[in-house]
Amino acid sequence: MHTTTDILLALFIVYVAAQVGAEIAQRLRFPAVVGEIAAGAVIGPSVLGWVHVSEPLEMLSEIGAVLLLFAVGLETRVGDLKRVGKAATLVGVSGVIFPFVMGALWARYAGFETPKAMFIAAAFVATSAGITARVLQEMGVLNRTESRVILGAAVIDDILAMLLLGVVTALQGGGSVNVVGLLLVLAQAVAFIVVITLFGTTFMRKSSMLLESPINPLSPLTLSLALTLGLAAAAAHLGLAAIIGAFLAGMIAAESQQRHTLERQIQAIMSFLVPFFFVVTGAKVDLSQLAGLPALGMLAMVTLLAVVSKLIGCGLGALSLGRKSALIVGVGMVPRGEVGIIVASLGLAAGVFTGMTYAVIIAMSLITSIIAPPVLSALLAGMPKEEASPLDEETSHLIPVEETGHHGQRHRRKE
Amino acid sequence: MHTTTDILLALFIVYVAAQVGAEIAQRLRFPAVVGEIAAGAVIGPSVLGWVHVSEPLEMLSEIGAVLLLFAVGLETRVGDLKRVGKAATLVGVSGVIFPFVMGALWARYAGFETPKAMFIAAAFVATSAGITARVLQEMGVLNRTESRVILGAAVIDDILAMLLLGVVTALQGGGSVNVVGLLLVLAQAVAFIVVITLFGTTFMRKSSMLLESPINPLSPLTLSLALTLGLAAAAAHLGLAAIIGAFLAGMIAAESQQRHTLERQIQAIMSFLVPFFFVVTGAKVDLSQLAGLPALGMLAMVTLLAVVSKLIGCGLGALSLGRKSALIVGVGMVPRGEVGIIVASLGLAAGVFTGMTYAVIIAMSLITSIIAPPVLSALLAGMPKEEASPLDEETSHLIPVEETGHHGQRHRRKE
Repeated sequence: MHTTTDILLALFIVYVAAQVGAEIAQRLRFPAVVGEIAAGAVIGPSVLGWVHVSEPLEMLSEIGAVLLLFAVGLETRVGDLKRVGKAATLVGVSGVIFPFVMGALWARYAGFETPKAMFIAAAFVATSAGITARVLQEMGVLNRTESRVILGAAVIDDILAMLLLGVVTALQGGGSVNVVGLLLVLAQAVAFIVVITLFGTTFMRKSSMLLESPINPLSPLTLSLALTLGLAAAAAHLGLAAIIGAFLAGMIAAESQQRHTLERQIQAIMSFLVPFFFVVTGAKVDLSQLAGLPALGMLAMVTLLAVVSKLIGCGLGALSLGRKSALIVGVGMVPRGEVGIIVASLGLAAGVFTGMTYAVIIAMSLITSIIAPPVLSALLAGMPKEEASPLDEETSHLIPVEETGHHGQRHRRKE
Repeated sequence: MHTTTDILLALFIVYVAAQVGAEIAQRLRFPAVVGEIAAGAVIGPSVLGWVHVSEPLEMLSEIGAVLLLFAVGLETRVGDLKRVGKAATLVGVSGVIFPFVMGALWARYAGFETPKAMFIAAAFVATSAGITARVLQEMGVLNRTESRVILGAAVIDDILAMLLLGVVTALQGGGSVNVVGLLLVLAQAVAFIVVITLFGTTFMRKSSMLLESPINPLSPLTLSLALTLGLAAAAAHLGLAAIIGAFLAGMIAAESQQRHTLERQIQAIMSFLVPFFFVVTGAKVDLSQLAGLPALGMLAMVTLLAVVSKLIGCGLGALSLGRKSALIVGVGMVPRGEVGIIVASLGLAAGVFTGMTYAVIIAMSLITSIIAPPVLSALLAGMPKEEASPLDEETSHLIPVEETGHHGQRHRRKE
């Protein structure tokens, strides 16, 4: 058992490190999350050794990840998903297939067994909608066609990545790939997601009605938090990632009439808990693992693959918009951010890969999140901020504008 | 180590139990906190056994208590304290002395050693401002003189109780009472509180200025949370209760210009984390400890003492307001609520007393919180809602009205 003083001191150090890291990153025009993870690596065992990742810290980190994905889900409306245009769908799907296949082929070639190779490939897949949306917002170009396609595709991408993550997680149990097993796992994941999403919408509408009754003053916030913990536990129990459950809870809560109140409240909770996730993530990176030539070689290869596979996959999907627009879309989809990091944490926790692979995937997620924003800014510079678009009707509901964030930083800017 | 599924499931059960308990309590017109603690006792080992208090749950509970006391501090302005009228001061001080002396004498007589007897007596002292304020608010009588005196006295009471708690906690180290040691501990506690409060105010004003600079977009929320964790850790390190540090952090944050934004944000965070504190508190009560005749006798005695000592202490202090008003003030100060419970948790954690004493103090805190509201309602029924008062100027800054709460429930009513 740890003493109260030890625990509170660790929480204090982690929280302050997160804020200092975020602040430095923002001043250097990097996403805040980059600074938080770097802060974790600095205060963790591999540099200063101020904080060791104990069970209570792990739990806070897990809760942080769950809340983060809940918030991402909260930006995703089932109704909007149905209205997503062809371009966004094409970009989203092709932006999952290319990185996954290229990642899996490389990992298999690099000597990983097929289930592990698929897990590693899953980290290549997801796009961090938050980082790109924030860049688009800061550039004032959220109304451009490219921005809408990126945001729409990122949503599809996230869902496919979640599904894929569930499948590859469940696959780690058995050593060999078994098509029937794969289909069963897939069916289970799809059934869970579809059933929860459909019934959840109905449930949330009923709850909204209850809320208006003065006898039953349950708040949307407490209902949503209970739902999030429940679906996260259920997803974990089914062998899916807990964050998939949290993401579904977010999509369900997005149907609530009190969605905007909820977003403000969740942002406050997140600004307390999400930093623990990123700092603990960073503290788990053993920097010495990246020191050798093999690790640096692997990092260069993995990062190159991650960038190229997204550029090709998403760029091809967006080719109908013109070449420059396709390039913008491709670059916008490059950041892996927190989703890649979550996959890496799950892989480490499940014993799927070693410290070096974990360190490489975290570093790749960071590097893609760091290099994409300046390139995107350069490509967008001087372009008109708005543009009449044939996709308007299809995707205009998809733009979360100010609320795309999954983090407390947005708060800071606003206040 | 616990698996992710186990931890998330435990969090889900605890959180849902808290909401169900709070809802049932509110429908029965009891404070929500009573329902949350009862829910903890039901799902805990002594009844259903659905949840066991593991280290991660303990930590969440500790964080919940820290946030709760931060919020109580946030309602307390140093400037307002200076303007508190004579009546409130008299009621506050006399309402601390009577219960502490009577409690300590009884506990000493009941066979506890002096340091332990003083610790038990500390649980007799504090008033739960939240419960009474909520009753006054629901009755629409917050502008009456009695209400203002109660709220002002509760603030003084809380500070004296915090100080006392720090002293008795530090005293548990040595077995015997040593006047020099006692004075040193007192001096240390007072110095910590005074220095932190004075410098804190200045610090917060500087931070507020920084906030307006666009280069440094640190938010009041993250600064306050960091301050809370830091002062809680510092207080714990000094041998004081961690919650004293959190309370001071709240008083400092109350000086911030963004106080109201902060209150809204903290309420959202609290509605997620504070229930863990109350449910875990309830889960630690071993109901079988209350089964025997000695325990029930002790409970009856302790509850009687707790009620009578506050009625006499506060009633005497408020006698200048007239006899009926003095009675109202006395009854309003009876609920021990969460502060008594926090003292009991600290006593159990420090090994100061056994399961039976813990169960008795928790039960006493609950019973006083349950019996006072209906009596207070009955005494106030039919009285005019407002009243010109000679204390207006002195105490009008002290009334937190809607914000007195330390809990998510208020939220629910509003939405």
